[in-house]
Amino acid sequence: MSTLEIRTLADVQASGDTRGVYIDQVGVGGLRYPIAVEGRDGNTQQTICEAELTVSLAAEVRGTHMSRFVEALHERRIGLSPHGVLDLTRHVALRLDAPAADVRLMFPFFVPRAAPVTGEEALLGIDCTYIARIAPGVTEINVGVRVPVTSLCPCSKEIADYSAHSQRGHVDLEVRQAAGQPELYPEDLLEVCDGAASAPVYPLLKRPDERHVTMLAYDQPAFVEDLARESAVALQADPRVASFRLEVSNQESIHDHQAIARVTWRRE
Amino acid sequence: MSTLEIRTLADVQASGDTRGVYIDQVGVGGLRYPIAVEGRDGNTQQTICEAELTVSLAAEVRGTHMSRFVEALHERRIGLSPHGVLDLTRHVALRLDAPAADVRLMFPFFVPRAAPVTGEEALLGIDCTYIARIAPGVTEINVGVRVPVTSLCPCSKEIADYSAHSQRGHVDLEVRQAAGQPELYPEDLLEVCDGAASAPVYPLLKRPDERHVTMLAYDQPAFVEDLARESAVALQADPRVASFRLEVSNQESIHDHQAIARVTWRRE
Amino acid sequence: MSTLEIRTLADVQASGDTRGVYIDQVGVGGLRYPIAVEGRDGNTQQTICEAELTVSLAAEVRGTHMSRFVEALHERRIGLSPHGVLDLTRHVALRLDAPAADVRLMFPFFVPRAAPVTGEEALLGIDCTYIARIAPGVTEINVGVRVPVTSLCPCSKEIADYSAHSQRGHVDLEVRQAAGQPELYPEDLLEVCDGAASAPVYPLLKRPDERHVTMLAYDQPAFVEDLARESAVALQADPRVASFRLEVSNQESIHDHQAIARVTWRRE
Amino acid sequence: MSTLEIRTLADVQASGDTRGVYIDQVGVGGLRYPIAVEGRDGNTQQTICEAELTVSLAAEVRGTHMSRFVEALHERRIGLSPHGVLDLTRHVALRLDAPAADVRLMFPFFVPRAAPVTGEEALLGIDCTYIARIAPGVTEINVGVRVPVTSLCPCSKEIADYSAHSQRGHVDLEVRQAAGQPELYPEDLLEVCDGAASAPVYPLLKRPDERHVTMLAYDQPAFVEDLARESAVALQADPRVASFRLEVSNQESIHDHQAIARVTWRRE
Repeated sequence: MSTLEIRTLADVQASGDTRGVYIDQVGVGGLRYPIAVEGRDGNTQQTICEAELTVSLAAEVRGTHMSRFVEALHERRIGLSPHGVLDLTRHVALRLDAPAADVRLMFPFFVPRAAPVTGEEALLGIDCTYIARIAPGVTEINVGVRVPVTSLCPCSKEIADYSAHSQRGHVDLEVRQAAGQPELYPEDLLEVCDGAASAPVYPLLKRPDERHVTMLAYDQPAFVEDLARESAVALQADPRVASFRLEVSNQESIHDHQAIARVTWRRE
Repeated sequence: MSTLEIRTLADVQASGDTRGVYIDQVGVGGLRYPIAVEGRDGNTQQTICEAELTVSLAAEVRGTHMSRFVEALHERRIGLSPHGVLDLTRHVALRLDAPAADVRLMFPFFVPRAAPVTGEEALLGIDCTYIARIAPGVTEINVGVRVPVTSLCPCSKEIADYSAHSQRGHVDLEVRQAAGQPELYPEDLLEVCDGAASAPVYPLLKRPDERHVTMLAYDQPAFVEDLARESAVALQADPRVASFRLEVSNQESIHDHQAIARVTWRRE
Repeated sequence: MSTLEIRTLADVQASGDTRGVYIDQVGVGGLRYPIAVEGRDGNTQQTICEAELTVSLAAEVRGTHMSRFVEALHERRIGLSPHGVLDLTRHVALRLDAPAADVRLMFPFFVPRAAPVTGEEALLGIDCTYIARIAPGVTEINVGVRVPVTSLCPCSKEIADYSAHSQRGHVDLEVRQAAGQPELYPEDLLEVCDGAASAPVYPLLKRPDERHVTMLAYDQPAFVEDLARESAVALQADPRVASFRLEVSNQESIHDHQAIARVTWRRE
Repeated sequence: MSTLEIRTLADVQASGDTRGVYIDQVGVGGLRYPIAVEGRDGNTQQTICEAELTVSLAAEVRGTHMSRFVEALHERRIGLSPHGVLDLTRHVALRLDAPAADVRLMFPFFVPRAAPVTGEEALLGIDCTYIARIAPGVTEINVGVRVPVTSLCPCSKEIADYSAHSQRGHVDLEVRQAAGQPELYPEDLLEVCDGAASAPVYPLLKRPDERHVTMLAYDQPAFVEDLARESAVALQADPRVASFRLEVSNQESIHDHQAIARVTWRRE
């Protein structure tokens, strides 16, 4: 097929539409792609994201051009800090000739973590999200993490003669960065989650470490409500945080369902 | 343990809290439970939900009482129409002595569906959601469905000398019911989704039926944008709809990612 | 389209094949369907299965007829005991004119469970599987469960001055029934799993119950290896068991990965 | 805690067991870890695996030492070819002092893929698995892939006056490597899957490419049975293949369930 022939293929997407429905977001989702992410210390980490890239679509236009979203991510897949994702979002808007664009990248990010007594180190993966949005008058950068933690039930500790049930929980934070403030990184949010937990979780624990975290969790019991509030207090105290949504979910070891708590907050 | 002893177990949850963090939602999630749901025709259907039940928690109170959420669902698990879920939500608020409560029940709902030519009937399962919320001055009922559909690409049809790629897609609708209007049922939303598709999907098709849906889809090509707009137009025309959020997602047969579109709308 | 016309549609599946490849299993999977299951007490329970129904296909035949699998399940969806699934499997083989057929139904099954001290009752859902296979000289019925349990770490208990980490774990059993023995039911396997755990999990616990299970788990610490061995010993002692595969998986509360153990066994 | 004190912590795992149950596999699962994988061309690719590492446990020993599995993967996470995973497996057996060990690494692997007409290139991710097993007299290396493909229904094409339904399908291959043969790589298996499909899937297609794949799929219709047989024939012809298990699954665009086929084979 010659270039001439390619150009003459009908562009159905560019045809008009009369139904009068503005589309908030249209694009691609569930796109798995290798990316390079910048962490707080400036180092780059190879990881794999699930990407969603969308633009708004005027009521008068029938369709968007899906291949350009993939091209945009392919071109800008290296050096993605939270601000880098904003640059990618601007690139998408430009490529698709759209007034508004959203990009959401979800990826595991690995941090070295030393066992608390022996100091032996291994890597802990946390789920991170970088989200950026541009629209007329709007420029937003959001950073999210989902961090596994240990929680130990204060009620169980209080009412039992000995021991208390503990379980794996997850703290999900999604933070909107305040304008004109230094960049917020997943490592910052990880510290918030660990600080709220009965104990952090570790990829590797030797016996003296296991002894330590067992007793630490018993010394710091926390309901889902406590995990939520401790996280909220820490985020409210950080001037880089414009607003946040958080969810805590405990995989109760005595039940087959979860205990959950949610808090949303916006700086006045 | 005597009743007296039971009463003297400490109630850690009821103790005070000084961190000043109001909790929007706290309760149980991921609770799998058998329920009986009422459909549009008034018949009852046994199904299994994944339930989330939460209340708000004042900043001054340390914790909620998790077991009461399970008790509330257990007691009211029969006869759940969308309005029945509102009743359950009021029951939760009362039980937990909370000013605001949210209940979300997600469950498969089965509808008989006859093959389009042979008329042979089988059951099609669609994912439904009943959501209710009460708070001071707020009473909301939401009904949602996630409906599998066939989509056939208009661009592929136009540019190829023959055939066109098709795929399974999903239309997700979540509708807030208008106050003072007749109740909206999942079956109503299913009709919206089917009407927007290149062709409905069927649990059972014999060869004459397969011939029919193959040609029907080719005769009704639809982008994700078209699926979103056709659904939106139908919902806007229904006075029972106060607002909606919809998402269409196509499992592109030529890619390993999805094409997606989202529309939100609120009646003025 | 007249019946005559329907009959004249080409049957591509029935055409021959020269590649010489016998197909072990071909059919439908991921088919969600409402079924009625018989429990140990003879009562019937409405539930929803994910079904897989397949037959073998001779090297000389190009394809099977997919719609007949759905018809077979639709026709026999009521009264499914483990032996009822064997009847369904025979029905599939007959319908598809195949020498071998396999049916696998996975479904949640709910059992009433009273809290251990207060006696308050709610429903616990466990994942069950009924599997049947027929082939020349082969008739097999398998029953499986996946049961949530509480596990408490014996090492943590031993090395810490107080407390011990606990977590939710799962015991997966899949048992082949011995020929000529009474039928084995999911409730029988549930008892095996509960008996191996540090404590059973409950859908509903009041404070005196929570006190009880907290101390019970501490009194009965169990590694994944212990959970696996206790389950194995109980199954080996049951003459209804011809062979089994089991897997235990603990969602370690101090890590973000699982501890797992597997045992397979066949009666000599 | 001094080294002396660490040494004096009880080793509960090393104590004896009298229940007489040999454990086939015990270790860690669901361990997410960054690894570096070697592809067919000798280049290294950073990716993220979900790892399962286990050993056998004699009936007389109570427990294994879970932290050593994480240490083993951390130490050998670089340069993992299929043979590299065998080395890791030997390392695990040595570390745990066990006669048998199994390692299974599942990870996305990205290959550059040029659009078929325009030649524009992007990255396609495929799910890969490296599995190794050592036991007395046993040394096995298995390589697996799960490849998305386009399938177009031959029956639909034959019976409809125009068009044919297509959908995304997946071909899952797991191959045991023949001893003394050159190493088999995921890229080799990807070629098998693509060769069996109605058309390969692409991460990026411009309009002339979409035109091409639309017509290509119509020219190469394939049932799940055809996909399974074409894959089987190609694998049987490759002397590096000692045995294989394959599964094809089509996300039927006209149904909400899958069509599936499975073939197992072992070289005589």
